[in-house]
Amino acid sequence: MNEHAIYHISSGSYCYPVGGTTLRVRLRLARDEALEIRLHYQNIYDHKSPFFSVAMGRLFSDRLFDYFEAEISLEWKRFKYFFEIAAGGDRHFFGSEGLTDAVKEKECFFYPYINGDDVAMMPEWARGEIIYQIWVDRFWNGDQSNDPEGAQSPDVLPDRDTYYGGDFDGVMRKLPYIRDLGAGIIYLNPVFDSPSYHKYDIRDYAKIDAAYGSKEKLRQLVDKAHGMGIRVILDGVFNHCSSENALFADVVNRGEESPYRSWFCIDSFPVTAGQYDSFGGLVPSMPRFNTSDPGLIEYLTDIADYWTGYLGIDGWRLDVADEVSHRLWREFRRRLCGKYPDILLLGEIWNQAAPWLDGSGMHTATNYRYRKYALAFSSGAINSRTFWEKYNADNSLYRTTLYDYRVNLMGSHDTARLLHVAGDKRRALLLQVLTLTLKGMPLIYYGDEIPMEGGEDPDNRRAMRWERINSEFHDRIRQIGVLRRDGNALRKGTQEIRETEPRVLAFIRTYGEERVAAALNFGSEPSQVEFDGATWTLRPLDYRVEPL
Amino acid sequence: MNEHAIYHISSGSYCYPVGGTTLRVRLRLARDEALEIRLHYQNIYDHKSPFFSVAMGRLFSDRLFDYFEAEISLEWKRFKYFFEIAAGGDRHFFGSEGLTDAVKEKECFFYPYINGDDVAMMPEWARGEIIYQIWVDRFWNGDQSNDPEGAQSPDVLPDRDTYYGGDFDGVMRKLPYIRDLGAGIIYLNPVFDSPSYHKYDIRDYAKIDAAYGSKEKLRQLVDKAHGMGIRVILDGVFNHCSSENALFADVVNRGEESPYRSWFCIDSFPVTAGQYDSFGGLVPSMPRFNTSDPGLIEYLTDIADYWTGYLGIDGWRLDVADEVSHRLWREFRRRLCGKYPDILLLGEIWNQAAPWLDGSGMHTATNYRYRKYALAFSSGAINSRTFWEKYNADNSLYRTTLYDYRVNLMGSHDTARLLHVAGDKRRALLLQVLTLTLKGMPLIYYGDEIPMEGGEDPDNRRAMRWERINSEFHDRIRQIGVLRRDGNALRKGTQEIRETEPRVLAFIRTYGEERVAAALNFGSEPSQVEFDGATWTLRPLDYRVEPL
Repeated sequence: MNEHAIYHISSGSYCYPVGGTTLRVRLRLARDEALEIRLHYQNIYDHKSPFFSVAMGRLFSDRLFDYFEAEISLEWKRFKYFFEIAAGGDRHFFGSEGLTDAVKEKECFFYPYINGDDVAMMPEWARGEIIYQIWVDRFWNGDQSNDPEGAQSPDVLPDRDTYYGGDFDGVMRKLPYIRDLGAGIIYLNPVFDSPSYHKYDIRDYAKIDAAYGSKEKLRQLVDKAHGMGIRVILDGVFNHCSSENALFADVVNRGEESPYRSWFCIDSFPVTAGQYDSFGGLVPSMPRFNTSDPGLIEYLTDIADYWTGYLGIDGWRLDVADEVSHRLWREFRRRLCGKYPDILLLGEIWNQAAPWLDGSGMHTATNYRYRKYALAFSSGAINSRTFWEKYNADNSLYRTTLYDYRVNLMGSHDTARLLHVAGDKRRALLLQVLTLTLKGMPLIYYGDEIPMEGGEDPDNRRAMRWERINSEFHDRIRQIGVLRRDGNALRKGTQEIRETEPRVLAFIRTYGEERVAAALNFGSEPSQVEFDGATWTLRPLDYRVEPL
Repeated sequence: MNEHAIYHISSGSYCYPVGGTTLRVRLRLARDEALEIRLHYQNIYDHKSPFFSVAMGRLFSDRLFDYFEAEISLEWKRFKYFFEIAAGGDRHFFGSEGLTDAVKEKECFFYPYINGDDVAMMPEWARGEIIYQIWVDRFWNGDQSNDPEGAQSPDVLPDRDTYYGGDFDGVMRKLPYIRDLGAGIIYLNPVFDSPSYHKYDIRDYAKIDAAYGSKEKLRQLVDKAHGMGIRVILDGVFNHCSSENALFADVVNRGEESPYRSWFCIDSFPVTAGQYDSFGGLVPSMPRFNTSDPGLIEYLTDIADYWTGYLGIDGWRLDVADEVSHRLWREFRRRLCGKYPDILLLGEIWNQAAPWLDGSGMHTATNYRYRKYALAFSSGAINSRTFWEKYNADNSLYRTTLYDYRVNLMGSHDTARLLHVAGDKRRALLLQVLTLTLKGMPLIYYGDEIPMEGGEDPDNRRAMRWERINSEFHDRIRQIGVLRRDGNALRKGTQEIRETEPRVLAFIRTYGEERVAAALNFGSEPSQVEFDGATWTLRPLDYRVEPL
C-alpha cells in the first residue's frame, strides 16, 4: 500500500458531527488502491463490547487520492474508531499509530463528545437555491426623485464615479423577473450610507443610502420579496469603513483620546494618510477596522442585529470575510443565529475557505475556485477528467454538509463578466448552465443571464440592459433555473459524475425518485453520452439538461 | 517525487502566526527526498514586485515524512506563498493546485491577514517549567482540626472512600520541598466543596472544601508560593458536577420548571437515575453539564473569574477538557485571559489535542501519548529510532509554539504510578529524568520523585511517604529539576536529537551559549554516545545529563 497517501484526522472535514449522536468519518487513500474499507467504532468508555462496524463508501476521487466516507451513530456521543483496509489481497488496519497488520483496539482515533454547538447547522431553506446578485444603482431606476446628481442613462459606460439612479423601488418592480429566473435569494450589494457609488466604504452603518430609498422602503422590498418566495441577503461590509465615517473621523480628530482609537489599525498618532491600515492596505479612503477589538465587535454585531430584525432580512454576505477576525464571525454566529436561527451567513472568500467553515462562524463561502476550473475547462486548458479531479480535490477540503451550500459563481462585481471571459455566447451559456446544474447554491450576477458584456472593474458594473431580455440565452437560463426551483433534484440531489470524452461534462442529480441528467459538450465535435441505456447526442457547444 | 506524501494547508500546524507580522509555514514531504526547499512569498495585493524567498529548515522527521518549516514576515500582514522543492536533480513547485514543474505565481496558498487574536499568545512565565501535582488530602496533614471523620494514617492503603487529612496548611509547610525539586508550578487536584474524597464531583463551586481549609487559607498558600517563586494552578472541573450540587438538585426537584434544566443533559423529565448524561456516561452521581448552554457558560466563567481574582492563582488545569464544548473554552479564554492576561489554561486531553489548541481556547494540554511511547521504549517494545519517530509524528500535529508548553507526564492520579509501570526503580528514574530533560513542561505526580508504589486507581493515590524522601532517587530527580530551574537550556532550549544505539536516547538542549546534553541507556549493555567530540560511556540502565 502507498502508506504516505493515507490521511485522517479526527476533526475538520475528516471527522465531523452531523447530528446529536452521529458522526461522518472520512479516510483518504492513494487512488484506485483500496478494494474495501470498513470503519470499526465503539463508545470510548466501553472496554468490553465488540466494536460495531460499517462499510465506507467511496465519496469521490481526485488525481492522486480516493476519499471514503461513512456515517456512524452512538447514543453515548463518545466515539473511538479505527479503519480496516482491504487492498491488494492484504488486510491492513489504520489507527492513531498508523498502519498495522493486526487490529489494535487501543490505537484508536477519538471523537470525545458531540456537543450540540459542534453540529454545523445549516439554514435548510437556502439549500441549493439560486442567488441573484443585484447592484442596486445599476439595476432599475424605479423612483427618479431619489436619483443622485448627474445620474446617467443605462447607455453610458461606467467610470469609477458614475451613478445610474437604480433604487429599491426598481428592485421591487423587477422581483417577478427574478422569480421567473428561478432565483430563491437576492443578494444586494451595499445599501448603507456611503460617499461612493460602490458603497463598500460605509459612512454611517445606521443609515440606508438615500439614493436607494428609505429604510422603510427597503423593509417593504424585503416583505414583497418574501411574499413572492424570495429571500433577501445584504452585503455586510465589516472589514473596513469610509474615512468619512464618524468613528474614524473621531480618531483622526482626537487621536489617542478617541474611545475608538483601538477600533482601527493605526500605526501612530496623530493619524495621517498612509499611517493606518486600509482595505487591502491600499485605499486610505477605506480604513480597516481592528476586527479583534471587543468594543468594535459589539458595535458591528449590534448593527447587524438591528438591521436583521428591523428589515427582516434572511442573511448577510460578508465582505472580505477572510481578513476579518474569527472572533468577530464567532460573535456574529452566536448573537445573530441565536436570535434569528434561520439566517444565512455567506462569506466572500476567494481561496481555500476551510478555516472559516468549521461551524463556529459563517455557514458558507463564495466558490471562486470553481469559476477558475470551469474557465480552464471551457478554454481547453484542462480536460474533463482534470476538471473533475480539481473539483473533487477542492471539495475534499470541506465537509459534505457544505456541498449543497457552496456558492458557485461565474462572475461578480469583482471579476470580468462571464461573457467577457467565456469569449462567446455559446460558451457563456454552457458555463452558466453548468453552474446552475451542479450541486451548490449557484450565483447569477445581474445581467449574466442576458448576457451582458463587461471587462474588468468598472466595466463589469454596467447598467442592466433591460431591452435585451427575452433572448434565447435568457430563455435557456430561465428554463434551467425553473427546473432547479421547482424540483428537488438540482437543489438537493446527489451528484454522480459520468466518465466522458475530454471536452464533455456529464452527471446525474438524484433526489428520491427525481433524476435530472446533464451533459455539456464544450468541444468542437459532436459527442455522445450514455445515461441509463439512453444515448444522448450533443452537437458541438451544446448541452442537454433533462429529467430522466 | 512521492507526490502523495506532500502536504500543506494554510492553517493549523502548517501555517500559523507567531507575531503581528510573522507567519510560520510548514511543509511535509516523503522522508529523505528533498534536498532543498525554498518558500517564496509576497504581499497578497502586490502583483508587481518579485516574490521574497527563504530557505526552509528541516524541523524533524518521522517514519514516513520530513517536515520543513520557515518563518516569514511582511508588514502588510497579508501573505501569498508557494514552495520550490529541489529533489532528485529536479526542481518542482508546489502551490494551491499541487505539484508543477514551472513557477505559477497565481497558484499560491494564502494567509489573508494576521489578526491580533490569531496569534496564539502563551504565558511566557510557564515556558518549560516543572509542574508538581498535589492531591491535597494525600500530601500532608498540616492542621488536624479540619480532618474529615475517620482520617487515616499514611500507612493505610487507600480505598475509594479513604481520607488522610491532608490540607492547605500541609501544602504550605511543604513548599520548600517542592521548590527544592525545581518545580515552578504546583497543580492542586480539586479543592472545592464535594461529598467525595476525590472532589471531582463538586457540590458547591462557590465554596472551598472545609477539609482542606478556608478560602483565606488557600489564598495564603498562593501568596506564600508566589513569595517562593512557585505559581499555583487549580483543577477546574467544568464538565460535570455532583448530583448533590444545588443546580442539579433543582432540576431533579422542579423538572422542566427549573431554570437550570438546560444546564444538564437530561433525556426526559422527571429526572430519574440513568435518564441523564454523566461523567463518561457511567457515573450518575456526577451529572454532566450541557457545556453548550450560554447560561451555564456564563455561570462557570463567572466562577472561574471569581476564584482567579480572589485567590490570585496562575491558571487552571481543565478536567475532561475534550468533552467540554469549544464555545465554553473560547469564552474562558476571552473572559479570563482578557482580565488576567498571564494565566495558563491547561486541558486534560489524552489523545490528539489539536482541535483544542488552535489558540482560541486553552493554551496547552496534557501529553499522555508521550507517556505511552516512553513506556513502550522502556519496555523494549520499540527502539530509540521508533521512539523518536513517534515522538516527532505526534509533534507534527502541533504548532512549534506549543512544544515548550506540552505537559509531558509519566503518571497522574488517573494512571498506575510510574514505578509500577516502569517495573523497577532504575527504569522509573530513567523515565523521570527523560521527562525532566525533554522540551515541554514536565509534570511530576506527587511521590513519583521518591518513588512511591501504586497500581491502578485507587492504589495510585496513596498518602505521600515523607519518611522515604532524601533517597538517592530523590536526589537525582532534584538534581535534574534544579538544573532545569536554574538554567535556560532545559526550559527553553532547542532540542537536537542524536542517532544512537537502539536502546539509547540522546539529545542536546541549547539556549544561546547554554548547552545541556542528555544520554539515557535503557539497555542491558554498556553504550557510548558522542557529543561534540567527547565520548560518554553509559553503563546499562544509567544516564548522564550535563552542561557541555
